[in-house]
Amino acid sequence: MKVRRSDRLIDMTRYLLERPHTLIPLTFFSKRYESAKSSISEDLAIVRRTFAQRQTGILETVPGAAGGVRYIPIMGEDEAENFIAAMSKRLSETDRLLPGGYVYLSDLLGTPSVLRQIGRLIATQYREAHVDAVMTVATKGIPIAQSVSQYLNVPFVIVRRDSKITEGSTVSVNYVSGSSARIEKMELSKRSLPANSRVLIVDDFMKGGGTVNGMKALIDEFNAKMVGITVFAEGKFDGDRMVSEYTSLIRVDKVDTKANTLHATAGNFLDRNRQLLEVAGQ
Amino acid sequence: MKVRRSDRLIDMTRYLLERPHTLIPLTFFSKRYESAKSSISEDLAIVRRTFAQRQTGILETVPGAAGGVRYIPIMGEDEAENFIAAMSKRLSETDRLLPGGYVYLSDLLGTPSVLRQIGRLIATQYREAHVDAVMTVATKGIPIAQSVSQYLNVPFVIVRRDSKITEGSTVSVNYVSGSSARIEKMELSKRSLPANSRVLIVDDFMKGGGTVNGMKALIDEFNAKMVGITVFAEGKFDGDRMVSEYTSLIRVDKVDTKANTLHATAGNFLDRNRQLLEVAGQ
Repeated sequence: MKVRRSDRLIDMTRYLLERPHTLIPLTFFSKRYESAKSSISEDLAIVRRTFAQRQTGILETVPGAAGGVRYIPIMGEDEAENFIAAMSKRLSETDRLLPGGYVYLSDLLGTPSVLRQIGRLIATQYREAHVDAVMTVATKGIPIAQSVSQYLNVPFVIVRRDSKITEGSTVSVNYVSGSSARIEKMELSKRSLPANSRVLIVDDFMKGGGTVNGMKALIDEFNAKMVGITVFAEGKFDGDRMVSEYTSLIRVDKVDTKANTLHATAGNFLDRNRQLLEVAGQ
Repeated sequence: MKVRRSDRLIDMTRYLLERPHTLIPLTFFSKRYESAKSSISEDLAIVRRTFAQRQTGILETVPGAAGGVRYIPIMGEDEAENFIAAMSKRLSETDRLLPGGYVYLSDLLGTPSVLRQIGRLIATQYREAHVDAVMTVATKGIPIAQSVSQYLNVPFVIVRRDSKITEGSTVSVNYVSGSSARIEKMELSKRSLPANSRVLIVDDFMKGGGTVNGMKALIDEFNAKMVGITVFAEGKFDGDRMVSEYTSLIRVDKVDTKANTLHATAGNFLDRNRQLLEVAGQ
């Protein structure tokens, strides 16, 4: 049965949103809705226009016989600035400071709407980086990795600091924890990352960068390639960070352990990604 | 500027999909698109029809001054059966069996499309259960909890078996691990779960049910209420399970440790939820 344009637009929107970064041939929609390819092209032009106006995504057209359309989720500059400002405010709330200069984030990183925005924002930075897998370390980086993985539509892999018997053979590396200068060990299931994968590292919180550095070493062990590092928040760290190239959404810049307060502000994410965020406004 | 119907339908669909189980007043859309309430009502009727035909969601209308529309994600019976059959097949692949009768699931539980389907399916069972929070235990249950939490649009909380300094004060319970009959300890950050919360427990794999039982004890400690237990897969367990009321998507029913093979089939999820899944076909 031929499907009406209004019904097509609704179903098409849902279908595309659930499959980011996936090439969908026009013939697929043409068959699904029993409609001419020319009608489908017109539909997609409307979807493209609406996504662009609302700055929520780019609908790429790939021409030719093997072509189709691809939905690329993005966050526009205004929304990104508002989100980061809102998060900085939330992080600066009293009672978030934990012993050791850590920050309580479990409430934010367990809230679906926050995770959706973090995922869409980080995916905006790496939308042209051809990421094959998102990597994080258990446990608090997992929600961020999963959300970014949803928007880039690639798998995520979880590095562990404790051995579990339920993962099969693993590859492990030693790393120096930046905060405590202790030697630690982390490992990843052998079969979870194919060689030559392009890997994006994400984490919830970075201090000295030791954990991130460990993940870099692990990526080398798998003969894979790191394409970037992004953390939700970076903390204050006295001394040399082991990692120099990264982006952070938030920076915790003033910590007062006596008054039990901290102050959070925007990290370097916005400045580093102006161009990628501005595309949304075109 | 008044927005055309086609543009409204696309943006409305996206807006609703990103906010499941959330009441949105008609006046919100009316203002957003500078369109009459009667036009918005017609738009929503089209969205409702398309979601129902494709069995992907229910658009509930709440009448009255405080009313509006609410998008409830669901999975229809056919899609649920196909998904569970496909997962059973994947689990029965060779080389998934790990020492101790565990099953390698990290690839599936790190794949965005699989997690979306798990989340939407489990959310279908609990769509009328007024869940306030989804609970799981670190680390392998986290992706499932996060995905269900996205579709129910409620926070998720992560119980830990190891103490981390970065969570603040915790409440802990001892529990008996069903597999090893050892006494173990699990804990949850004190501020992560308000009293009287209605809590849904999810996990990746259940054998004896000891871990799930521990979470039940923890829910009691927080003066909260458990509303259900759903696991992705249940394994073979010789003896009495500590948990009797639960649903499982998959059941691992034949394990041959010599040949290193297992056989997986549908769990009790489909049979227990026929009615809730059939509503999708109405």
